[in-house]
Amino acid sequence: MRPSAAEESCPAGLGNTRSVIVGTPQRVSLPGLPPPAADAAELERLRSVVGRTLSAFLTEQHDTLAEMAPELAPVAEEVIAVAAGGKRLRPAFAYWGWRGFRDPVATEDDDAVLRAVSALELVHGSALVHDDVMDGAVTRRNRPATHVGFADRHRGGALDGDASAFGTGAAILVGDLALVWSDELLRRSGISPAALGRARPVWDTMRTEVTAGQYLDLLRAAGGLPGPAGALTVARYKSAGYTVQRPLQLGAALACSGPEAVRSCTAIGLPLGEAFQLRDDVLGVFGDPEVTGKSADDDLREGKRTLLVALTEQEADAAGRALLAAALGAPGASPADLDQLRALMESTGARERVEQRIAEQTDRARQAIAEAPLADDARTALDALAVAATSRAA
Amino acid sequence: MRPSAAEESCPAGLGNTRSVIVGTPQRVSLPGLPPPAADAAELERLRSVVGRTLSAFLTEQHDTLAEMAPELAPVAEEVIAVAAGGKRLRPAFAYWGWRGFRDPVATEDDDAVLRAVSALELVHGSALVHDDVMDGAVTRRNRPATHVGFADRHRGGALDGDASAFGTGAAILVGDLALVWSDELLRRSGISPAALGRARPVWDTMRTEVTAGQYLDLLRAAGGLPGPAGALTVARYKSAGYTVQRPLQLGAALACSGPEAVRSCTAIGLPLGEAFQLRDDVLGVFGDPEVTGKSADDDLREGKRTLLVALTEQEADAAGRALLAAALGAPGASPADLDQLRALMESTGARERVEQRIAEQTDRARQAIAEAPLADDARTALDALAVAATSRAA
Repeated sequence: MRPSAAEESCPAGLGNTRSVIVGTPQRVSLPGLPPPAADAAELERLRSVVGRTLSAFLTEQHDTLAEMAPELAPVAEEVIAVAAGGKRLRPAFAYWGWRGFRDPVATEDDDAVLRAVSALELVHGSALVHDDVMDGAVTRRNRPATHVGFADRHRGGALDGDASAFGTGAAILVGDLALVWSDELLRRSGISPAALGRARPVWDTMRTEVTAGQYLDLLRAAGGLPGPAGALTVARYKSAGYTVQRPLQLGAALACSGPEAVRSCTAIGLPLGEAFQLRDDVLGVFGDPEVTGKSADDDLREGKRTLLVALTEQEADAAGRALLAAALGAPGASPADLDQLRALMESTGARERVEQRIAEQTDRARQAIAEAPLADDARTALDALAVAATSRAA
Repeated sequence: MRPSAAEESCPAGLGNTRSVIVGTPQRVSLPGLPPPAADAAELERLRSVVGRTLSAFLTEQHDTLAEMAPELAPVAEEVIAVAAGGKRLRPAFAYWGWRGFRDPVATEDDDAVLRAVSALELVHGSALVHDDVMDGAVTRRNRPATHVGFADRHRGGALDGDASAFGTGAAILVGDLALVWSDELLRRSGISPAALGRARPVWDTMRTEVTAGQYLDLLRAAGGLPGPAGALTVARYKSAGYTVQRPLQLGAALACSGPEAVRSCTAIGLPLGEAFQLRDDVLGVFGDPEVTGKSADDDLREGKRTLLVALTEQEADAAGRALLAAALGAPGASPADLDQLRALMESTGARERVEQRIAEQTDRARQAIAEAPLADDARTALDALAVAATSRAA
């Protein structure tokens, strides 16, 4: 096996060494200060291009499927719906990785890079759809989870056989299509073949890691990988690498940056990605359903064994452990049972400890952002993203 | 969306026009004659390189996963086991597509092409694993289907929760990994970046089609897409394109061949792929389990609505239709019930009509092989493959 036909070297004189960045001093802010308005405008532009890219690409795929057989249209429509939501966090990290580590002379078209990083949303959509099957989740982003929606479609169309099995099968295939299409979108984004060749190794690593992380999560839900350490191992692969470290490295690869940049992406990405996941875990239990788009009872009913749960279990007395054993992961747990679980998470100090860890890991990431050989505007934007990703309400 | 950064033009003077092929006359055989021994040796070499490629690549992936967490090793081992079997038919079509349409001056390394086409086996492995979940299949290639194996592992390890749901979740992820790894293997096969760029559009189309075809199959199993026409639509996308047409076109793309070759691949691939699927359907019901590696009752118990079943239903009298309704897809159907179903397939003439269609489509494909602008050795090899794929016993 050759290491990679695609690990191409960078154009002479570009990449591999960081030269002085021509920043725009008025946009530099110290970590901790609110981001300047210009970053909000940049983030809005990113979200807009990502949304338009996904819409144009998926409409084309929709038409291709519908031409094959009109019965395929709902499959494409589901991918479109899954890709429509979301904070576009992974594209944002990848984009700012590119902006931060590129040389003053950009070798790729900015819009092409934005289209390329949009493909991360399809990887993510695929993971969400498959994950919801595994977790038995009911809702996602204020609409039925894919497997639930297709089970409903089965019932509505008076089809034969088991509606739930049909829903599961359809969700497997919707996730597969999103995964396949993520590749195609990356390829057709308009980035240069050389940039594409540099991006693919990170891309492949990221997809292997997130899938492996999902298996670890599944195993943990079944009692494998116990304790707080197990929760952190799952978070490492399922979230930290996949949400921040690898997207940043993807951007750095597009920028043709060298090993120092790759190390910086890890130093920023792993703590920040973990903090992001821990925030997600807390929101899954204590968040406002109106804002998060999913019931605050779902994670508890599904029995998600987050760090929050592991620390609660570790610190609880016998009565607390009995409550956990009875109510966590019990589909029939009453709202009062779940409120008691939430109270236990507070009274054991578990929630507080998770909040502390979020704060520590966020600080560590922001320190790494401050020290990385980044262009100043990217440093400011990444710092704002770090704060937003870990202090969000949804 | 740009059409494709990767749709690269071919090297000047190569491809796009077919020049006279320098064949080896002693190896040319007329369609219908048994293949000369040299082809058997070539096929053996292909199988050997494919097997070694998959083994080396997947061992590396295994080690990567085990380093992430030792609990991941069984996931990689499952992909290895899934990829270990099979007839290597798709790599064979792709390889002979390349051999057949390349110019006298080969621009790619032969072993690199063999490694590239090996990646088709991982796409196929992914489809099989996900398909077995959807069909509720119990065995595959003389071993438990992936979801069954992981459910057993759950029970054996005394894990918490529902063993069957764990098996389904693990199989989804095993299939996802095989899909992700198929890309990585293609990329790292050692073919030139230009060849990789030409291969990817066909690759993407193939993966979209097979996933779409699987959905159509799922819908048909639930009573959507009824009748013989529905069975042929499923076969078109789930099998014909994916098994023969697109692999041949992948080879032609590696060979940098022009539109005439692409059309020839379709003229060969669609009828041959359909005949292959219909042979599969017949073997699924009338095959020898010792040879096919799966019970001849599975397809009937799963209620697969093949063309064979559709024609039986169409031709049966009221009693026959009642038998079909009661026994097809009934997990508890007795061996005697299933024997009655088989007898019905014979007595209605459905089996005979499917055999006729296999023969007609095989003839059509062989005629296209005879007329295609192929190198002589590839013509001989593809003809032998066409005969083998449609008259096989397993």
